Amino acid sequence: MAAPTHIPASAANEQAKLSELYSAFEAAHLAPLWTQREGLMPTTPEPDARPTLWQWSTLLPLAQRAGELVPVGRGGERRAIALANPGLPGTPYATPTLWAAIQYLGPREEAPAHRHSQTAFRFVIDGEGIWTNVEGDAVAMRRGDLLLTPGMHFHEHHNPSDRPMAWIDGLDIPFVRYLDAGFFEFGPDELATRETPVAARNERLWGHPALTPVGVPTPRSSPLMAYRWEHTDAALRAQLELAAEGHPGVLEPGHAAVRFTNPATGGDALTTIRCEMHRLRPGCRTTPTRIAGSAVWQVFDGSGTVHIGADTYQVAKGDLFAVPSWAPVSISAPDGLDAFRFSDEPILAALKLNRTARADA
Amino acid sequence: MAAPTHIPASAANEQAKLSELYSAFEAAHLAPLWTQREGLMPTTPEPDARPTLWQWSTLLPLAQRAGELVPVGRGGERRAIALANPGLPGTPYATPTLWAAIQYLGPREEAPAHRHSQTAFRFVIDGEGIWTNVEGDAVAMRRGDLLLTPGMHFHEHHNPSDRPMAWIDGLDIPFVRYLDAGFFEFGPDELATRETPVAARNERLWGHPALTPVGVPTPRSSPLMAYRWEHTDAALRAQLELAAEGHPGVLEPGHAAVRFTNPATGGDALTTIRCEMHRLRPGCRTTPTRIAGSAVWQVFDGSGTVHIGADTYQVAKGDLFAVPSWAPVSISAPDGLDAFRFSDEPILAALKLNRTARADA
Amino acid sequence: MAAPTHIPASAANEQAKLSELYSAFEAAHLAPLWTQREGLMPTTPEPDARPTLWQWSTLLPLAQRAGELVPVGRGGERRAIALANPGLPGTPYATPTLWAAIQYLGPREEAPAHRHSQTAFRFVIDGEGIWTNVEGDAVAMRRGDLLLTPGMHFHEHHNPSDRPMAWIDGLDIPFVRYLDAGFFEFGPDELATRETPVAARNERLWGHPALTPVGVPTPRSSPLMAYRWEHTDAALRAQLELAAEGHPGVLEPGHAAVRFTNPATGGDALTTIRCEMHRLRPGCRTTPTRIAGSAVWQVFDGSGTVHIGADTYQVAKGDLFAVPSWAPVSISAPDGLDAFRFSDEPILAALKLNRTARADA
Amino acid sequence: MAAPTHIPASAANEQAKLSELYSAFEAAHLAPLWTQREGLMPTTPEPDARPTLWQWSTLLPLAQRAGELVPVGRGGERRAIALANPGLPGTPYATPTLWAAIQYLGPREEAPAHRHSQTAFRFVIDGEGIWTNVEGDAVAMRRGDLLLTPGMHFHEHHNPSDRPMAWIDGLDIPFVRYLDAGFFEFGPDELATRETPVAARNERLWGHPALTPVGVPTPRSSPLMAYRWEHTDAALRAQLELAAEGHPGVLEPGHAAVRFTNPATGGDALTTIRCEMHRLRPGCRTTPTRIAGSAVWQVFDGSGTVHIGADTYQVAKGDLFAVPSWAPVSISAPDGLDAFRFSDEPILAALKLNRTARADA
Repeated sequence: MAAPTHIPASAANEQAKLSELYSAFEAAHLAPLWTQREGLMPTTPEPDARPTLWQWSTLLPLAQRAGELVPVGRGGERRAIALANPGLPGTPYATPTLWAAIQYLGPREEAPAHRHSQTAFRFVIDGEGIWTNVEGDAVAMRRGDLLLTPGMHFHEHHNPSDRPMAWIDGLDIPFVRYLDAGFFEFGPDELATRETPVAARNERLWGHPALTPVGVPTPRSSPLMAYRWEHTDAALRAQLELAAEGHPGVLEPGHAAVRFTNPATGGDALTTIRCEMHRLRPGCRTTPTRIAGSAVWQVFDGSGTVHIGADTYQVAKGDLFAVPSWAPVSISAPDGLDAFRFSDEPILAALKLNRTARADA
Repeated sequence: MAAPTHIPASAANEQAKLSELYSAFEAAHLAPLWTQREGLMPTTPEPDARPTLWQWSTLLPLAQRAGELVPVGRGGERRAIALANPGLPGTPYATPTLWAAIQYLGPREEAPAHRHSQTAFRFVIDGEGIWTNVEGDAVAMRRGDLLLTPGMHFHEHHNPSDRPMAWIDGLDIPFVRYLDAGFFEFGPDELATRETPVAARNERLWGHPALTPVGVPTPRSSPLMAYRWEHTDAALRAQLELAAEGHPGVLEPGHAAVRFTNPATGGDALTTIRCEMHRLRPGCRTTPTRIAGSAVWQVFDGSGTVHIGADTYQVAKGDLFAVPSWAPVSISAPDGLDAFRFSDEPILAALKLNRTARADA
Repeated sequence: MAAPTHIPASAANEQAKLSELYSAFEAAHLAPLWTQREGLMPTTPEPDARPTLWQWSTLLPLAQRAGELVPVGRGGERRAIALANPGLPGTPYATPTLWAAIQYLGPREEAPAHRHSQTAFRFVIDGEGIWTNVEGDAVAMRRGDLLLTPGMHFHEHHNPSDRPMAWIDGLDIPFVRYLDAGFFEFGPDELATRETPVAARNERLWGHPALTPVGVPTPRSSPLMAYRWEHTDAALRAQLELAAEGHPGVLEPGHAAVRFTNPATGGDALTTIRCEMHRLRPGCRTTPTRIAGSAVWQVFDGSGTVHIGADTYQVAKGDLFAVPSWAPVSISAPDGLDAFRFSDEPILAALKLNRTARADA
Repeated sequence: MAAPTHIPASAANEQAKLSELYSAFEAAHLAPLWTQREGLMPTTPEPDARPTLWQWSTLLPLAQRAGELVPVGRGGERRAIALANPGLPGTPYATPTLWAAIQYLGPREEAPAHRHSQTAFRFVIDGEGIWTNVEGDAVAMRRGDLLLTPGMHFHEHHNPSDRPMAWIDGLDIPFVRYLDAGFFEFGPDELATRETPVAARNERLWGHPALTPVGVPTPRSSPLMAYRWEHTDAALRAQLELAAEGHPGVLEPGHAAVRFTNPATGGDALTTIRCEMHRLRPGCRTTPTRIAGSAVWQVFDGSGTVHIGADTYQVAKGDLFAVPSWAPVSISAPDGLDAFRFSDEPILAALKLNRTARADA
């Protein structure tokens, strides 16, 4: 340590002078680094967010009850109920950057059009019969599908069926709120369309493997709004089959994973949120892995045990859990498990803050 | 013009001095710009390559005859017969940058492994029953499919069937030869595999729309080696259907087109060659369009009339034609037509030399 | 609004049911969107951070007093006093993303080596005689210079002179803390070097305009650690002279501005922080401009009046002020003014959340 | 080798059938691969271009003589005399891709404005007193300077002095002609400006190390048209001094090198041509190095011996030599040497065809 330039008269006298200085700091809207450096710049990440489990068996009845009591429409806009991480009290945030909610739409209900800087997706754990209109293009929502609404795209939901449906929404609301970078606009009160096509126009143009329409201008964000379960399922199955035949492809033994991408760039489907689907073969236990940045998982099928740091959860279909930054995660699936995962890794990667450590490395 | 600094004595004397100067230039391996500026730097491109038609009805019998007379194997390597543009005499080049050939493999024949800097693709006009092994991964070749062999990938062909098959090869042989950038290596004499899977491993990993395997390192070139006709056909059909419903997507009225892309980047499937499939609805006549850089087309299905500058060709299934740089092209298809097109546009685009002009613009 | 699916019995009864539901939400770590949508997703940014002025005449004496009372060294690491935005109570943050501090090093003092994910710079308002060693390369700090320490570069400071010196530090501490993406390491207690060169090695290699050393590997972050005042001053002067001659170059009439860039990419010098120097000719008043994302300015020379939303500050040399996201800013400088500005725009730009609006547009 | 499918009757009969086939190929504008594969796709590059030396003591008098006999002006446009590689007979090309010429402008002469797709630079071996106007911005040309005229920028030269001056031009004329991608336009007959500033406007805006004007739109090509010798010299000197102090920076022991870059991107200054300056300390002999792609060097100062494959040249100030693709090059400079080098590496790099091999690797 460098030699201090002062000579302490007495400890008490010294302390008094320091207190005076610290008071002067406070009065001048100042704060010393040296008293709080460790908290501000820990050796490794020390997230406030906590590993947290939300069970589908709790979420779905509450969403149904909200369906009975709360109308959907202009102002509140959506009947969405957010996962609120207990480590981030007073916020409706699943992690510091990610919003995750269960959204519920009853028979014949409609959620009106709006658009915003915030990036959004829907993932459907069960059901069908609802359409999300994105810029007037009606996108069917069905079990296992991932549906996008990139930033500043008008979108609205409608349920022309007799049955309610619930799904999860993922957004970067916390991140955009944190940056104070959000702009929000209401759209028309009247639905853009009540069409109910099997495939949206964007899928028909962009949903073919590695084929790009020549006549369409280069899009600024992903032009594909729907990633269908049949393709995701086939891709995961193929990885495990290839592994069984002795070939590479899986993320690790027994663990297949695909990332949802923007077909115009090959990069993440959304600018701020990474979306992936994982499949664990029966008997698989994934290697404990730390990743800088936070994530939320939802079990899509099957069951298993999740280890996040010192915590352990039994998880089943529909259950969601939040993973704070740098917490080691491992999942065991004696009977196999499919899980959807989304994270803020595109933010960290774009700014070269990304980092990963595997227990076996 | 700037005032010359010399005073001509007499024209004859002057000419003699100039001749002496030009002889001195030649002796010193020099050449004046001012006598050849127009040829070197024309106002608009003045290609030596000519619009040229090669008819399938001529090509196929010659390829079959070659199949009877010429063995395939080490040294010559492939039974490929190149389109030689009459404007580029002494070369086996379809255009200054592009090689196009019909390749023919008889029953039970095999073409041995090699690899090279040159980028290659195969496009199948008819038939099936042959596999191209790319780095040991067996890729089935079937009618309408586009198959890639990016630079420095070992590849070999084998025909386990009782029937011969012909297809076209496209490569950047002229361009790589021009740049003196080619490296070539023989592979093992023995086939890497004689497997005949319906789908190659690379397709099983990468052939799902906008889905990327998480566990596979980022590839340096396109990881997808097969673009199947069923997808290409569906994408073209969708564009025309969308147009009929009043929505955008087609390149121009009645004219659908898709580009084959690298799923890891969204860019061209090959570094130096752009590959596209075009479909003209019955009655369509495309707008005359000039594009800097050269192209080769092959009619895949249907028939029509091709206008390239002052030339006009009647074309039918399998016919190939070369389009020199900046020549205006228009195709009429009274009964509809599908055509595969490849060009050197990625070269021009990478170097910001690309330019397009449409007659209606 | 979509028709609600429920039939309210009575308002009171209804309210009781809702209260019950909201209690159930809270117990399950859930929060409804509809009651807080406006706060989470305002129409335009509604930052908590406030426009705030910190006067140099207050800061410098407090830093000097800290120099007398507080040693610099291992643990606290730096004698840095942070600007604490009163709109972000409990934090030592100038804005949600940016840390700004005055750092003070007395005669013969040394601050020990450490490295961290956080990106940092120093800007020198006055003085000289101190060196920052970045990865063992001694970088002189002089009036008007911008000095970088990109993420994970070991750095230490030493003052071999008889005079103290103060400067400002800018870092992305709040952003990295928010993302939980920070890693911190102590370096050796002993200084890497006590050399005091006029120019660092990195400047000698990279500090030449548009010239890159061929023999040096492509750097991952800016390889240039020092941007000298003589160049910044010359660049600003040239812009105003060009304007006076009737040519483009200035940002707006009377307002010159340069951005500090990474010479290996042409992009921002730092991954997360944009750094600029602005010069206002006497009599200039800048157009009120809103920018998504936050910024901090420091007056380097001259004086003027700053308008941020409804607030107005008289500013003079050394004064710092924070600009929250989307607040309209205008600066008047009757006698001319130079100011250093840093902001989080690279974060917003990388994620396509950037947006600007000028009052004259 | 795969088994041939035919049974030869007799060698003579067989040969007759083959001749018939080959005639049929020729008639149909076809050419077999198997007879020419080795020439088309050699194991390693086999350039037609030859290592060639052009001595300044020959070039300069011929340029002066042309100055007496040939006017400069509209049509021929420039008094430029090109290096014609004897391995590329009939062309005025230094290498397959590169044009290199000595250009000569007499006292009071002017060369009229034109623009073209071709990218150009000037490098000044000696003299001063001439200005190149690029888009109306007058750029002084002085000993050791590199001056750019990117594609489609109007440019003209004028010599307001009493003395002639010679310099070298480098362009991608052969490459653009090969691609048939060239567009050429005459500008006004009258000069845009006869100003003779010490520094051009583009230098005043962009010629400051790692500083970008904020108010100027992002340029499509390098915005900096002049790279001054004082900076190039300082950068080279610094590398050798750093090496003498034991630090990295030089390309290899005794061999310093800088690349001229586009300050807006950090990449090559020109889209198709790489420009570098090399300095060899007295006694240095560079490691024999092969690079895919071709290059031209000009000795700027000093003397030495150049080894290109089996050829050896004694070179002195002003001498130029061409290096074909993949030819091993080494330079010895007992008394030290400065040399300017330009090459087509940006073309190969953009298309992933670049490759380098050093004898010591």
